[in-house]
Amino acid sequence: MNLVPRFAFSIATTDGAARTGTIAMQRGTIRTPAFMPVGTAATVKAMRTDEVRASGADIVLGNTYHLMLRPTAERVAALGGLHHFMQWPHPILTDSGGYQVMSLSSLRKLTEEGVAFASHLDGSRHMITPERSMEIQRLLGSDIVMAFDECTPYPCSKAETETSMQLSMRWAVRSRQGFDSGRDHAGRSALFGIVQGGMHADLRQQSASALIDVGFDGYAVGGLAVGEGQGLMFEVLDYTLPMLPTDKPRYLMGVGKPDDIVGAVLRGIDMFDCVLPTRSGRNGQAFTCDGPLNIRNAKHKDDTRPLDTVCTCPVCTRYTRAYVHHLVRSGEMLGAMLMTEHNLYFYQILMAGLRQAIAAGCVQDFAAVFLKRYSGGAHEFIAD
Amino acid sequence: MNLVPRFAFSIATTDGAARTGTIAMQRGTIRTPAFMPVGTAATVKAMRTDEVRASGADIVLGNTYHLMLRPTAERVAALGGLHHFMQWPHPILTDSGGYQVMSLSSLRKLTEEGVAFASHLDGSRHMITPERSMEIQRLLGSDIVMAFDECTPYPCSKAETETSMQLSMRWAVRSRQGFDSGRDHAGRSALFGIVQGGMHADLRQQSASALIDVGFDGYAVGGLAVGEGQGLMFEVLDYTLPMLPTDKPRYLMGVGKPDDIVGAVLRGIDMFDCVLPTRSGRNGQAFTCDGPLNIRNAKHKDDTRPLDTVCTCPVCTRYTRAYVHHLVRSGEMLGAMLMTEHNLYFYQILMAGLRQAIAAGCVQDFAAVFLKRYSGGAHEFIAD
Repeated sequence: MNLVPRFAFSIATTDGAARTGTIAMQRGTIRTPAFMPVGTAATVKAMRTDEVRASGADIVLGNTYHLMLRPTAERVAALGGLHHFMQWPHPILTDSGGYQVMSLSSLRKLTEEGVAFASHLDGSRHMITPERSMEIQRLLGSDIVMAFDECTPYPCSKAETETSMQLSMRWAVRSRQGFDSGRDHAGRSALFGIVQGGMHADLRQQSASALIDVGFDGYAVGGLAVGEGQGLMFEVLDYTLPMLPTDKPRYLMGVGKPDDIVGAVLRGIDMFDCVLPTRSGRNGQAFTCDGPLNIRNAKHKDDTRPLDTVCTCPVCTRYTRAYVHHLVRSGEMLGAMLMTEHNLYFYQILMAGLRQAIAAGCVQDFAAVFLKRYSGGAHEFIAD
Repeated sequence: MNLVPRFAFSIATTDGAARTGTIAMQRGTIRTPAFMPVGTAATVKAMRTDEVRASGADIVLGNTYHLMLRPTAERVAALGGLHHFMQWPHPILTDSGGYQVMSLSSLRKLTEEGVAFASHLDGSRHMITPERSMEIQRLLGSDIVMAFDECTPYPCSKAETETSMQLSMRWAVRSRQGFDSGRDHAGRSALFGIVQGGMHADLRQQSASALIDVGFDGYAVGGLAVGEGQGLMFEVLDYTLPMLPTDKPRYLMGVGKPDDIVGAVLRGIDMFDCVLPTRSGRNGQAFTCDGPLNIRNAKHKDDTRPLDTVCTCPVCTRYTRAYVHHLVRSGEMLGAMLMTEHNLYFYQILMAGLRQAIAAGCVQDFAAVFLKRYSGGAHEFIAD
C-alpha cells in the first residue's frame, strides 16, 4: 500500500486571491505557486537535471509534439519512460501537443477526429486525436497529463472562438475517457482540463462549466500569452479564475515574464511554464531584480559585478558580468549554460519569494516592491 | 613564509622509461603523467570548472593567442587574473601563442624580432615577440609558462628545420630573460623550454643541449603530432627523451589519441594536452575501452548500455547511449556537455590507470591489456 496520494492539492494559506500550498504526487511534491522549466526534447536546454533540481524546480514540462516525433513515445516507453530516459525522477507535466502542432508542423488538417499534420523534422505524416494524445502521454509516463485541445488563433472573431472552444470541450470529454481507459494513468497520473474562450467572458464561463461537469484534477487557462498584452491577459484572469473550483490547481500555460507571473499569482494562479528563462538565457538576456540585462552589450566587458547584484545563485556567487560577457561574445557553450542556470534560479527564487509572502500575508507588498525595482531597471530586452 | 615550493618535480616510481610522481606548485599539485584539458578561451568548452576538476584534472591549458585577442591579457589582469576570471583555482599552463599564430592568424610576417599578424577575429594587427609572450602569460597569471618558439611546418627540409630550430633557440634565451625580468614570475610560476628539430636526431640534440644550457623548469617536445604518424612520433621520442634531464618534467605538446598517450608514457613523457576529448565529444565521438564510438550512428538509438560499458563516470552511471544519441541527433547542447564530460573522464581515468600501473611496476602489462581491447573495438572514428 502506497501512502502517498495520486494527486492531493492542499492550500496552506491564502492572501487575497493568491494561494500557496502543495500538490503531493507519487514522484514528489510540487510547491505552489510553481514555475515549471520547459524540457521540450527530454532536456531542459543546456542544463543537467541535477542543476534544474538544485535551482528549486519541483516539476518540469515535456512537449508531446517533439517527443512523439523524436525519439517517439514508443521508444521512450521501451527505454523505461521519460523520467528514467532523462534522469529526472520528480514529477513531469506533458502538454497535449495541441499548441506545437499548430505552431510547428505543416500541411495541417483539422477535423472533428483530431489534427493530421506533417512533421517539421522530416515531413512524415502523423495524426493527434484526444485518444492518441492520452496514449502518448501515458507512454511517456507523464505525471500531469493535459487534455488535447485546439489552440485558438489570436486575434479571432467571437464566432470562430466559440466554434474552437466547443470543439475543445468535446475533445476534453474524449481526453477524459481516453485517460481513464489507460492502464497506467489511474494509479499515478493526473489529468488537467484547459479553459478556452479567448477574450470573451461568456465563452470562458461556458468552457469552465463544461470542464467542471467532466471533472479534472486541475484547470489550465489556455489561449492567453498569445499577443493580447498583459492588461487584457489580467482582465481575462480576473473574470475566469472565479469560475473555477478553489480547491483545484490553476495553471496559466506559457506564461511568462516575471511581472506577468507576479500579477497572475496575485489573481490566484498556482502553476506556470515558460521558455523565457531558458531561451532568452541562450540569447544573452539575463533576468535581474533591476530588469532584464543584455549581457552582449559592450558596457559589461569590464564589469566585475555578478549578473544580478542581489542574486545568490551559483553563477552570481562565482562569475562576473565581464566573464559571462566574454563567453557569450565568444560563442562559448558555457555562456549559454551559465545564463540559463542564472535565469532558472531567478525564476525559482521569485516563486519562493511569492510563496513566502503569501504565507506571511504580505504578497501585495512583496509584489509592489518587486515590480517597482524590476520595472525601474535598465530593461535591455532582446527580441525572441 | 610559504612552505609550498614554487615548482618541485618529484618522481615517486619508475617502471622502465615510464615515471610517475608529482609537480608541487603553489596553486596545487599535479599528478604525473598528467593530461591537461584545453581551455582555449578561458573555458574548457561545454564544461563547468567544478566538473573539470571532478574528472581528475589537476591543471588545464589556456591559449595565449586567443586570450590576448579576446578579452585581452590586460583585461584578464585587471579582472583579477585568469584563475579568478574562469574560476579555476588550480594550476594553469599557458602556451606561448606560437602555434596558434601560425595556424589561425593571417598576414603573418616572421622576423628575428617575432611574428606580426592579423587577428582571425577582426583583422586587427598584433605582434608577438618572446618578450611580449612572457608579458602576456604573466598578465594572465599562468603557473606554467611556455617559451615562445616558431612552429616548424611539416613536412619541411632539414635546412629549413634547422633554421627554424635555431631561431626558436634564440627566442628561448629571450623568453628566459623576459620571464626572469617579470615581476610576478619569479615567485610562483615556472618556465618550460621546447625542444624542436623536427624528425632529425642531430637537430633534436642541438636543440636539447641549447635549452639545457639556458636552464628550464621543464622541457616540452614540440613539432610532433603534426601529421608524421604515430610510428615516427614514437621514434623521435625514443631518441629525444634521453637527451633531456631525468629530473625535470617532459611535456608532449598537442598529444593525443589514447594509444598515443599510452605509448608516450611508456617512453617517459610526464605531461600531455589535447583538444581531442573535448572537440571530438562535441562532434559526437565518445572514447571507450573498446575504441571510439560515433554516438550519431542509428544503431545506438535503442541501446540501453552506457557510452562505455566499464566506465564509472557520472555520464555512464546515469545515461544510456539511446539518450545521448537522441540529444546529439536533436542538436541539444546537453549532448555536447555529456559527451565532453565522459571523454574527459575517460582520459583522466586512463592517466590514473597509467600512474597506478607505473607505481605497481606493471605498466607494460597495463598498456598491453589496454591497447589490445582499445584497438580491437569498433573504432567509429569521426573526422575532426
